[in-house]
Amino acid sequence: MNKLYEQLLPYLERNHAYQTALALLSWDTETLAPPAAADYTAKSVGILSEEAYRILVCDEVHDLLKKLSSKKEQESLSAEERAVVRCLKKEYEKTACIPQKEYREFSEFCATAQTIYCRAKLADRFEDFAPVLEKMIDYTRRFASYRAKKGDNLYDLLLNDYEEGFTVKVLDDFFEQLRKALVPLLHKVTAKKDMIDKSYNYRTYPVEKQRDFCRFLAGYTGFDFNRGVIAESEHPFTTNLHNHDVRLTNHYHEKNLESAIFSVIHETGHALYEMGVDDSLTGTPAGAGVSMGMHEAQSRFYENMIGRSDAFWEPLFAKLTAAFPDELADVSMEQFLNGINRAEPGLIRTEADELTYPLHIMIRYELEKQIFSGDCTVKDLPELWNQKYKEYLDVTPKTYAEGILQDIHWSMGNFGYFPSYAIGSAIAAQIYSYMKGQMPLDDYLKEGNLVPVREFLRDHIHKYGSIYTTNELLKQMTGEEFNPDYYIRYLTEKYTRLYQL
Amino acid sequence: MNKLYEQLLPYLERNHAYQTALALLSWDTETLAPPAAADYTAKSVGILSEEAYRILVCDEVHDLLKKLSSKKEQESLSAEERAVVRCLKKEYEKTACIPQKEYREFSEFCATAQTIYCRAKLADRFEDFAPVLEKMIDYTRRFASYRAKKGDNLYDLLLNDYEEGFTVKVLDDFFEQLRKALVPLLHKVTAKKDMIDKSYNYRTYPVEKQRDFCRFLAGYTGFDFNRGVIAESEHPFTTNLHNHDVRLTNHYHEKNLESAIFSVIHETGHALYEMGVDDSLTGTPAGAGVSMGMHEAQSRFYENMIGRSDAFWEPLFAKLTAAFPDELADVSMEQFLNGINRAEPGLIRTEADELTYPLHIMIRYELEKQIFSGDCTVKDLPELWNQKYKEYLDVTPKTYAEGILQDIHWSMGNFGYFPSYAIGSAIAAQIYSYMKGQMPLDDYLKEGNLVPVREFLRDHIHKYGSIYTTNELLKQMTGEEFNPDYYIRYLTEKYTRLYQL
Repeated sequence: MNKLYEQLLPYLERNHAYQTALALLSWDTETLAPPAAADYTAKSVGILSEEAYRILVCDEVHDLLKKLSSKKEQESLSAEERAVVRCLKKEYEKTACIPQKEYREFSEFCATAQTIYCRAKLADRFEDFAPVLEKMIDYTRRFASYRAKKGDNLYDLLLNDYEEGFTVKVLDDFFEQLRKALVPLLHKVTAKKDMIDKSYNYRTYPVEKQRDFCRFLAGYTGFDFNRGVIAESEHPFTTNLHNHDVRLTNHYHEKNLESAIFSVIHETGHALYEMGVDDSLTGTPAGAGVSMGMHEAQSRFYENMIGRSDAFWEPLFAKLTAAFPDELADVSMEQFLNGINRAEPGLIRTEADELTYPLHIMIRYELEKQIFSGDCTVKDLPELWNQKYKEYLDVTPKTYAEGILQDIHWSMGNFGYFPSYAIGSAIAAQIYSYMKGQMPLDDYLKEGNLVPVREFLRDHIHKYGSIYTTNELLKQMTGEEFNPDYYIRYLTEKYTRLYQL
Repeated sequence: MNKLYEQLLPYLERNHAYQTALALLSWDTETLAPPAAADYTAKSVGILSEEAYRILVCDEVHDLLKKLSSKKEQESLSAEERAVVRCLKKEYEKTACIPQKEYREFSEFCATAQTIYCRAKLADRFEDFAPVLEKMIDYTRRFASYRAKKGDNLYDLLLNDYEEGFTVKVLDDFFEQLRKALVPLLHKVTAKKDMIDKSYNYRTYPVEKQRDFCRFLAGYTGFDFNRGVIAESEHPFTTNLHNHDVRLTNHYHEKNLESAIFSVIHETGHALYEMGVDDSLTGTPAGAGVSMGMHEAQSRFYENMIGRSDAFWEPLFAKLTAAFPDELADVSMEQFLNGINRAEPGLIRTEADELTYPLHIMIRYELEKQIFSGDCTVKDLPELWNQKYKEYLDVTPKTYAEGILQDIHWSMGNFGYFPSYAIGSAIAAQIYSYMKGQMPLDDYLKEGNLVPVREFLRDHIHKYGSIYTTNELLKQMTGEEFNPDYYIRYLTEKYTRLYQL
């Protein structure tokens, strides 16, 4: 092993131990911790974040990274080691420019902000969250400015954190294409919205039975219970301490059958990515999925391309009706397949169908652009939100909770994150198109055999962790970089067929 | 505030943040974490323990503690601050004598040892655990020798960690008194063992219903769900991150009604102690219960003196039969009260009745004495265990799992811990005797009002955290230090009455 790289290992180990503890504290807060603990936990998170900062931001790490980035040293490193150095350097540069004290204050503030957000949403009071949001935007702007080079667009920097290379310029173009294709398509679909009856979905489905069926579904889809656990939280999410400890949550609504079902398939898609990272990367800065866009590509691929397909349900529908014999007694498989693919403009992103989903994202993207260009204040946001929902989806929130307060992301400081949901959906369609040419996908699904799907993704994407960028992975696999045409074609064909347009 | 004490605060805060993370990692491993995570978690625990060591063991803390221990400085500190200094100093002295590298290795080893123990117990293979136990004993002996003064008995040092002042000399005397009084009493009881029929307890009690009833019982007994949570683990236990985050676990056996019921009351007793610590001590080294003996006094007081009393069940028995109407249809309250107090020699400590319980402890105490005096090797332990069970309880384990492997403590390095279970039981009886003179206890219980009990314990014990020692608390409250007579009298009277001896 390269001598300099060897000197880096103790820092990597320590860094990983802190990240493990911080990830666990965050997971615990979301899933289990008692309410009164929140403020105390926030303080511990602040302190441990500061300690982690100290490990990373020191002369030794700085010097090692500098030396290891030289052409000569790079040549003696393995692909994995080069990726580790690159990822750590990125993390270093993002962190080291922030003064230590501010970093700690921000970490503590983040942990508190989520609690305040959750309470504000519950009470439907935007005014309670507004000062926090303002402070969060200030922090984000300030921290981005610390690392900005002359002429950098701050929002570009944020976007780059979640998906390298996807600047405002790229995304404006991407969303413009989506808007042009999807808005007219949605109008046609909406005109025929009564074609599909989905009332069965809103009957009463006992939570206990949903929980059992979703657990089965996760395992069916490939979730490895030896390396992961399933818990519950307000909003489903997936987190990973490392590739041997991957955790997802679900949420069960008694009066909505498909919410939990597609959430668990979605989150299993995320989990399979992390579980599939090669062991040579475990616990290193390159040991997780490369980007939020590629992550969403996995989850939305499983949720939509696989999970909403006829072939997937062919061996499963009988299991579903066996779990809910009375509730689904009069529902045919065809009805169910139409129901789970029905499109209709709505207010809630996480409950949106495939067709309207990217429009929800576009709205958030446009708002974030305005926030960081200084075109709007926090006070304007609820009204702007509602205007855009009216314009793109022709719906109007009646409460803050179903409007501006619906997503947790901003309370976590995740600005620039939303676009990766749409990018991910587009990548999922691109992968889907390619995969269908490589294997008899529907046949496998009809046999109830998801192994070839998982292995294909593992071999082409998962195992590499963060070794390659999204575009590199796509190019290696499909021969082509990111191309949203597949996504537009996929949605157009799907909804044209479904609604007989 | 004293200037020197003020300088100590940042160390206290950091120390607390690490203790929080480590406690959470341990809790998570016991309750939820996926099996494959264990070795990775152990490594992170090792690293974070070493980091915590660095915070504590440094010249600044050493100097501050030294200065703050001077008579002059002590006089300017509040009682809380003095306790914090004393507790931190104790922790410092126990830790600083261990070389940093060994400390980390030991912490990592501990986290692994538990996993190996659990697997060995499951497979009923003592030989798999023996090398770990040997290493654990070596570590314990070595670490104790680092801080031993000339002429110190190593086992005394260990005992002192769990209950200050309870040396081998004190405990030999204590257990001798117990043996003399309880062994003949148990013979008389065993002769009449068929007097009480407890077969109803081993019917089938659905776990889901047990879980609901136990949750209700915890709240009834005073558990504050705003500051605590209940989860599940192989063995019930309680842990606390601080007084606003106290966690207990339970374990449900379908074929045993009372196991989960008395476990949850027992653990709630522990939880109430931690939840009752005054906020001025939160997150400090004095912010938890003062000793294991005093902790067990709380848990066993609630479990036995309260939870197995006629008065406690008077308002509750109807709720119990409502939860299990078919299962308990033919069981009267009298039968139930006799059943939950029945005594019979058995193999398993945690399932033992009040009368045989201290004999289980005595066996472990005698073995630990032999281990640390060098009178026996790890290889001898299973046979010695069985001999003592034969001698004191006239039963013989058929497997390691119900013999030498039944308790997790030694795999955690907790040597010297067991005696505090018996000490705690004795203190519970002492408190009970005093409390009955201070309030109409049975009347409160019959009214279903446990508030006066909780407040009494909070005012006299809980709120003080670690400010006073066990004996100081007992003296302040009852006018008398530890006195096992109450315990012997309590057990003698109880079983004489129950079995009409």
